[in-house]
Amino acid sequence: MTDSWLEQIKWDKDGLVPAIAQDHKTGRILMMAWMNRDALQLTIKEQRAIYFSRSRNKLWRKGEESGHVQKLYELRTDCDKDVILMQVEQLGGIACHTGRESCFYLRQDSNEWQSTDPVLKDPNSIYKK
Amino acid sequence: MTDSWLEQIKWDKDGLVPAIAQDHKTGRILMMAWMNRDALQLTIKEQRAIYFSRSRNKLWRKGEESGHVQKLYELRTDCDKDVILMQVEQLGGIACHTGRESCFYLRQDSNEWQSTDPVLKDPNSIYKK
Repeated sequence: MTDSWLEQIKWDKDGLVPAIAQDHKTGRILMMAWMNRDALQLTIKEQRAIYFSRSRNKLWRKGEESGHVQKLYELRTDCDKDVILMQVEQLGGIACHTGRESCFYLRQDSNEWQSTDPVLKDPNSIYKK
Repeated sequence: MTDSWLEQIKWDKDGLVPAIAQDHKTGRILMMAWMNRDALQLTIKEQRAIYFSRSRNKLWRKGEESGHVQKLYELRTDCDKDVILMQVEQLGGIACHTGRESCFYLRQDSNEWQSTDPVLKDPNSIYKK
């Protein structure tokens, strides 16, 4: 078993690459986070999105607290091999910690960021023990 | 005219944010590049994708050489305000410098990156004088 596909990725100076999660059915972009080498390797191995949390400085198994796991359908990289794009099934239908489907809910309009998408679930109820 | 929407963006330590271009009709992710403050401001002003080229260290009006301009339909940011997502019309139908529709043509499969998408146009003919 070779890891040459992993070696080909062009990690940035912090050892990370951006990783985009896209809903495999609707095409909606759910979020963008970061992966290090371990995160990418585990994402393939476990067939679910695993990121590297820069704020917590550790691996972040998406959904580990919220249950909002991203099941992996396909994983690609780009021509420069420095960005990851995943097709995922978003369990629970919520990717954002604000309780929205997608993190990209702020639309530029009239020199403001307009909040466009509904909160589907109270964040307090997502992360409660 | 206020630029407070620009001030709200959380630029990284190099003054950049990742910017994703998505085909506004098909939902296909075309590419991801970077924007600095000027690039984002000009993208809104000129209603076309303008990036900051890290390799050339200057603004990059997508399509300035190839004609493959990305006409802007909508621009969003995410919950952390540190990523940009654009809905665009890709003129010429080619976003990638390899002559493909999308830069994301390398699929992880059997521990390799498999090239999946056809080259629509010879890159030499895209960039010739």
